[in-house]
Amino acid sequence: MKGKIYCIGTGPGKEDLISERALKAIKESSVVAGYGVYTDLISNLLEDKEVIVTPMKQEALRCEMAVKKAEEGSIVSMISSGDAGVYGMAGLLIEMAEKSDVEIEVIPGISAVLAAAAKLGAPLTHDFAVISLSDLLTPWEKIEKRLKAASEAEFIIAIYNPSSKKRADYLRKACEIMAEHIDENTLCGYVRNCERENEEKGILTFKELKDFQADMFTLIIIGNSTTKLIKNQLVTPRGYKGI
Amino acid sequence: MKGKIYCIGTGPGKEDLISERALKAIKESSVVAGYGVYTDLISNLLEDKEVIVTPMKQEALRCEMAVKKAEEGSIVSMISSGDAGVYGMAGLLIEMAEKSDVEIEVIPGISAVLAAAAKLGAPLTHDFAVISLSDLLTPWEKIEKRLKAASEAEFIIAIYNPSSKKRADYLRKACEIMAEHIDENTLCGYVRNCERENEEKGILTFKELKDFQADMFTLIIIGNSTTKLIKNQLVTPRGYKGI
Repeated sequence: MKGKIYCIGTGPGKEDLISERALKAIKESSVVAGYGVYTDLISNLLEDKEVIVTPMKQEALRCEMAVKKAEEGSIVSMISSGDAGVYGMAGLLIEMAEKSDVEIEVIPGISAVLAAAAKLGAPLTHDFAVISLSDLLTPWEKIEKRLKAASEAEFIIAIYNPSSKKRADYLRKACEIMAEHIDENTLCGYVRNCERENEEKGILTFKELKDFQADMFTLIIIGNSTTKLIKNQLVTPRGYKGI
Repeated sequence: MKGKIYCIGTGPGKEDLISERALKAIKESSVVAGYGVYTDLISNLLEDKEVIVTPMKQEALRCEMAVKKAEEGSIVSMISSGDAGVYGMAGLLIEMAEKSDVEIEVIPGISAVLAAAAKLGAPLTHDFAVISLSDLLTPWEKIEKRLKAASEAEFIIAIYNPSSKKRADYLRKACEIMAEHIDENTLCGYVRNCERENEEKGILTFKELKDFQADMFTLIIIGNSTTKLIKNQLVTPRGYKGI
């Protein structure tokens, strides 16, 4: 029997934001692979499963193990939080299975940017850009170029991985780059631990964002010149109202 | 009794990609408001509901009616396909309820860009930009500026509303703008009617994209210089593999 790998985005954290398709795939699987933080979020679905957990930076090994299991005939679910195709495992998994004939089906999920935007109100609405400040896998020069381009072209900007212990000043650096094109009164929002325990959110100006202490579980959304606050919800209007 | 409005993204179309939270909110509602195409996609959930449908360009009226129903005490679900905050109704609804004390809760959904990306493989992975070519609500000069900026900064680019009857040549125009920065052999993908009846998808080069006949139900993803095809799946690698 030939196995299969489902590459699944389980959404931001809470089980009621996982799609039925993803739940069904997990139930069908005998093996579930993922980073420990993410498999823990769905631990009640894993009772009768073989669970493959590898730490961060061991993603390639995790994919190899998943491919091997599927080649041996297992149905495997490879779990990412959010959407598996947004800074998730889908790309690497397909690459690692290049020489295998195992089928890979990617099941989309609600990404952190969408969950955080909903928590804040409706800050995206318009064209938006998603940028990670982690330079672990992307050279900083490229990140800098994207921050410049996105701010200059008035995209709403969602920032993943704004900070970590090793990169404590990256959000400040990013704000300094974007300050050329973004007014200091522009409204921004953050959500920390979105749809998880100890969720926090807040609204701040672009000027305040520079000194904001984010961590790697924080998602930041930077509005554009039209973004406004309505009853504590962040909204970027899109021109419908006049119609 | 005070009512409430849930502003819901129902995902690309199939019911198994709607979150449980969204399903629960719809079940709890006595009134469901939406554009007819979207309420039709979930018609089997609407049997015992009052359904408010207004045509396109009557979005403000639809919101007003929803707010009024909630003020009268109803629980109302305002439906967008995909995610309600991505070119959806969330922003307008919050604006239209500015003077009301009705509570609005936005429930995120799987947006078309995430669903289409999953269908194609893993083309996003990296930083990406989402741009609509519809100039109904955004001036074309702004769209042009964003196309230039996103292509120059090597974002993966997802294009919503690439074409319509009135805007038959917009995708061609957009490609001509981006051609300054995107190599003609860059791999792109499209999905038409994603997760709906008559779904189609395909891979093409950036050169071919210029002459591609898209419609308003097509989502296009333009890769970057590293995007490649692995067993018919479009993948943008993210540097994990070497670790």
